[in-house]
Amino acid sequence: MQFISETSSDGVLERHFILDEITGVLWSPASGIVSAPLLLAGHAGGMHKKAPGLVASAIHFVTNYGFTVAAIDAPGHGDRPRNARDQQWAEAIHQARAAGEPISQIVIDYSGSRAQRAVPEWQATLDALQALPEIDAETPIGYAGMTLGVVTGLMLTAVEPRIAAASFGPVFVDDALVEAARRITVPVEYRIPWDDEEFDRAGAIALFAAFASNEKSLHARSGGYQPVPEYERDSSARFFARNLARRNAA
Amino acid sequence: MQFISETSSDGVLERHFILDEITGVLWSPASGIVSAPLLLAGHAGGMHKKAPGLVASAIHFVTNYGFTVAAIDAPGHGDRPRNARDQQWAEAIHQARAAGEPISQIVIDYSGSRAQRAVPEWQATLDALQALPEIDAETPIGYAGMTLGVVTGLMLTAVEPRIAAASFGPVFVDDALVEAARRITVPVEYRIPWDDEEFDRAGAIALFAAFASNEKSLHARSGGYQPVPEYERDSSARFFARNLARRNAA
Repeated sequence: MQFISETSSDGVLERHFILDEITGVLWSPASGIVSAPLLLAGHAGGMHKKAPGLVASAIHFVTNYGFTVAAIDAPGHGDRPRNARDQQWAEAIHQARAAGEPISQIVIDYSGSRAQRAVPEWQATLDALQALPEIDAETPIGYAGMTLGVVTGLMLTAVEPRIAAASFGPVFVDDALVEAARRITVPVEYRIPWDDEEFDRAGAIALFAAFASNEKSLHARSGGYQPVPEYERDSSARFFARNLARRNAA
Repeated sequence: MQFISETSSDGVLERHFILDEITGVLWSPASGIVSAPLLLAGHAGGMHKKAPGLVASAIHFVTNYGFTVAAIDAPGHGDRPRNARDQQWAEAIHQARAAGEPISQIVIDYSGSRAQRAVPEWQATLDALQALPEIDAETPIGYAGMTLGVVTGLMLTAVEPRIAAASFGPVFVDDALVEAARRITVPVEYRIPWDDEEFDRAGAIALFAAFASNEKSLHARSGGYQPVPEYERDSSARFFARNLARRNAA
């Protein structure tokens, strides 16, 4: 993991990094005083590691709770090259939307494919983060994501024992995701917009029902995907603070 | 409204009152320093104004947020006489439960009948509370309830313009409640237990969908009716603080 830039603003240190083909960013308190946990943030499909909503949440978490937050570009997103298949999918989604046709199946196929590549990338990123001086093997780790970042997060959390709590936003649900949710036992919160016309309520409820976690919460709110209200960001920070307190804290 | 007792413990003043046939209790900061809002708390069926969960929430709201909280016994509950019809209903519920039969229809009939009597009682209580020196016409008012307290709260909020935000817990849902929800436009939060075997998920979702509020949130959580986790109590307090800040606050 190579840090390629470092800037500091309003008490938040922002460091861009590269790890093999992965481009990422790490936010932490500029004071150097960090609290658990380390959060992995998975951006939405078509967005990138510095998507406005993701950055707003990261800044809130770092500023108000002292968390450390890491985000990486998904394959074919942000600073990473798009291959021909990525390009085809992006065009198919745009065309379906322009024609007023449902995009869910195209998005599901695309997200599944990208997430399959992203899971080992997150695991490699996690290895590298845990090798940093400020993060150790005892630092509890959480995952938070939206759309594509939910698909990746569900597949990652189902197989990666280092993820100890997860917060998921809206996603198009298929059987593969429900299957992944059945393998997840850590505390989960799942936040969905109730009134978005593309949103599949029944799929969301099936996904929530599938989580095998002893502690799980579904938050449905009026309105669409964006903006996420500030109180929901804060509720999410509280969820992580509650479930990922350092065991050896003084 | 006649205060019949006054005690103070851990910074919370508790005053019991009588208003005609209504028996009630009012909690407020012993310091006398109150913040908005005034919350009306509706207890669950078979419980009373000092049900343990209701008291725990009231103490949390008063201690941490400076709210004032009022609760009254529903007709036939707590310190109020049970008439023959109340008695019949209570026995019918006990018998159905003992026989392992569904109780929902009996509870729905009973709650509807009790709530119809409770709505004007809450309105009279509100008139009397607003006549107290520490509560004025500008004090924003919220309503929070569980089961029977939800039925009453839905019917009250649908017709009473003084209720400016409402928090509802689990309830057996019928068409009358869905109809009441359609007339509710103030901010609403609705908290349901996901794993209680008596709980009707489809009914809960129909009720949530029916609220005409621009701001509404559904919180579903793993586990049964009780206990309500401390973080949900706090989330509820934040909901009221956010939506019921005093307009003329300095």
